[in-house]
Amino acid sequence: MVQFVGTRHMIDLVGAIGLDGLFRKLAAYIEDDFARWSEFEKTPRIAAHSKSGVIELMPTADHELYGFKYVNGHPQNPVQGLQTVTAFGMLADVATGYPEFLCEMTIATALRTAATSAMAAKYLARKNAGTMALIGLGAQAEFQAYAFKSILGIQELRVFDIDPSAYPKFMSNMAQSGIRITKAASAEEAVMGADIITTITADKRRATILSDNMVGAGVHINAVGGDCPGKTELHRDILLRSDIFVEFTPQTRIEGEIQQLDADHPVTELWQVIAGEKPGRTDAGQITLFDSVGFAVEDFSALRFFRDCVQDTRFYDDIDLIAEPADPRDLFGLLAISGSRPALALTL
Amino acid sequence: MVQFVGTRHMIDLVGAIGLDGLFRKLAAYIEDDFARWSEFEKTPRIAAHSKSGVIELMPTADHELYGFKYVNGHPQNPVQGLQTVTAFGMLADVATGYPEFLCEMTIATALRTAATSAMAAKYLARKNAGTMALIGLGAQAEFQAYAFKSILGIQELRVFDIDPSAYPKFMSNMAQSGIRITKAASAEEAVMGADIITTITADKRRATILSDNMVGAGVHINAVGGDCPGKTELHRDILLRSDIFVEFTPQTRIEGEIQQLDADHPVTELWQVIAGEKPGRTDAGQITLFDSVGFAVEDFSALRFFRDCVQDTRFYDDIDLIAEPADPRDLFGLLAISGSRPALALTL
Repeated sequence: MVQFVGTRHMIDLVGAIGLDGLFRKLAAYIEDDFARWSEFEKTPRIAAHSKSGVIELMPTADHELYGFKYVNGHPQNPVQGLQTVTAFGMLADVATGYPEFLCEMTIATALRTAATSAMAAKYLARKNAGTMALIGLGAQAEFQAYAFKSILGIQELRVFDIDPSAYPKFMSNMAQSGIRITKAASAEEAVMGADIITTITADKRRATILSDNMVGAGVHINAVGGDCPGKTELHRDILLRSDIFVEFTPQTRIEGEIQQLDADHPVTELWQVIAGEKPGRTDAGQITLFDSVGFAVEDFSALRFFRDCVQDTRFYDDIDLIAEPADPRDLFGLLAISGSRPALALTL
Repeated sequence: MVQFVGTRHMIDLVGAIGLDGLFRKLAAYIEDDFARWSEFEKTPRIAAHSKSGVIELMPTADHELYGFKYVNGHPQNPVQGLQTVTAFGMLADVATGYPEFLCEMTIATALRTAATSAMAAKYLARKNAGTMALIGLGAQAEFQAYAFKSILGIQELRVFDIDPSAYPKFMSNMAQSGIRITKAASAEEAVMGADIITTITADKRRATILSDNMVGAGVHINAVGGDCPGKTELHRDILLRSDIFVEFTPQTRIEGEIQQLDADHPVTELWQVIAGEKPGRTDAGQITLFDSVGFAVEDFSALRFFRDCVQDTRFYDDIDLIAEPADPRDLFGLLAISGSRPALALTL
């Protein structure tokens, strides 16, 4: 049998663990996997583009576990009440190829993206960072806010969205967070005095959420919303003033903010910082940029984390995804074909 | 919710439909999709190799549906009582990216492989073919036998396996098939007088199941067992005497029997025959070879078929693989985070 964590179980599990502990531990899983980066088989995700969006498979593996995520991105989905991004993922045993763990990842992706952002900021933001600007109050916003509170101790948020109707949802979800929240009248106003700027807008086009004059010395930019060809959030001049950190360079060159730069523009892979091979932030005046697009290793870490969480709990179901004949050569024997007349007429 | 057909439901569904009707209709689905080949987004499968085997993702899509299969190949699995191949697959809506149908495919892959073989033989074997040699009595053997009976009307089988213990399993499973079965003492003996030769051995190495002198004029060879780099079943000289038909040339050059030939050796893609663009068998003396490795479109067809089969039946479960917030921007709201103490202590 394969262990399955569906949406209901994921919701209950998150509630049972609590967000603070969950974000800290999930970030630790991601950090552990980034620290052993060379052990992973890495490839840019495999994308199928259509006129309405993209469907992607994101596989990776170490020597023991194989993982992949199915994820879509359909910017027009909300118009018909559907989510832009849905996802699910799986872990399998490399030694046998048998799937072991199937998991909803719509919620899990939001959690892992936020945990990765905050984990990166731990290395890249100024040590005393206490205020974050949050631009874009869509589905990912609260996850980012809670992760930065849990992992970095962010106490104050300055938030902006072009859609006024996004605020009530956000404020309601943040009511018990203990974070002071200021609604800004513009992106310019939101970034004033912020130590960290997080951009998580979703429009599928080359946008300029941040212009060059909005980014002062010492700021850390957590750029999450730009994540496919033709979709960016930052003005190119900001990139030229920043030290840029990425997940997996070949993928980020295609999908990230740095698609605006020359293909040989210097970037640092985040794992190099975590493994101690390269410095993160080196001085208080430096502008650092985490050009986040999401990488398969983060999903692998999240799947490992949730698999470990649910063992010996009631937060999963066993499902019969894989046939298990007593004699592996006798798959046909499972069918127990009888000589009797078919009971179901095919009308296809 | 996503419709899920697990192993139990698949077994019951196959029993309810009956193998004859199932193979004929499944082959028709595959044939329909081969006939509209250009509508599919096609790519060689994405493989992750380890020392014990391979794990692959096989995606494809038309303008309406996206499908992929997860499948492994671990030749040493049977030693520990596990299957060499397990699989599952999924269909999603291209327009929204939402997954719609999740299906076990260990059994479904065996069914679709056999249906594809028999469908190909309909175009490539002699019209009066009545006898088939079946070499290799592993997990796929009975599926091939039943498919060729259902689709081509094969009445006689000449079978061989190097492992004597494979016969009782095979004979027992075929007891109600109505096919006359002759156990041969060798592969040479099995092919005597056969109109069609099906090879489905599983050893992961360059083997010679058929040598050149074993293949006479007019025979159709259905070569199923060779399906990854370094794994072949036929002597190269047979290939040079045959007209070769493949599924998707770039993948078969890597994985099929034709990995033994020059990269520009002429082959015909099966869809061209089905669409009427190229001839199949042109004379009774010709040797035809279907160099089958399995392609994503066949899995797509099988997923479509089983999805259509289970609508308005009891042969599936609804599972909550995808989160469905009432407001797509309010994914966080699903979590219903309370201020209370976490109930589950993390001990990871």
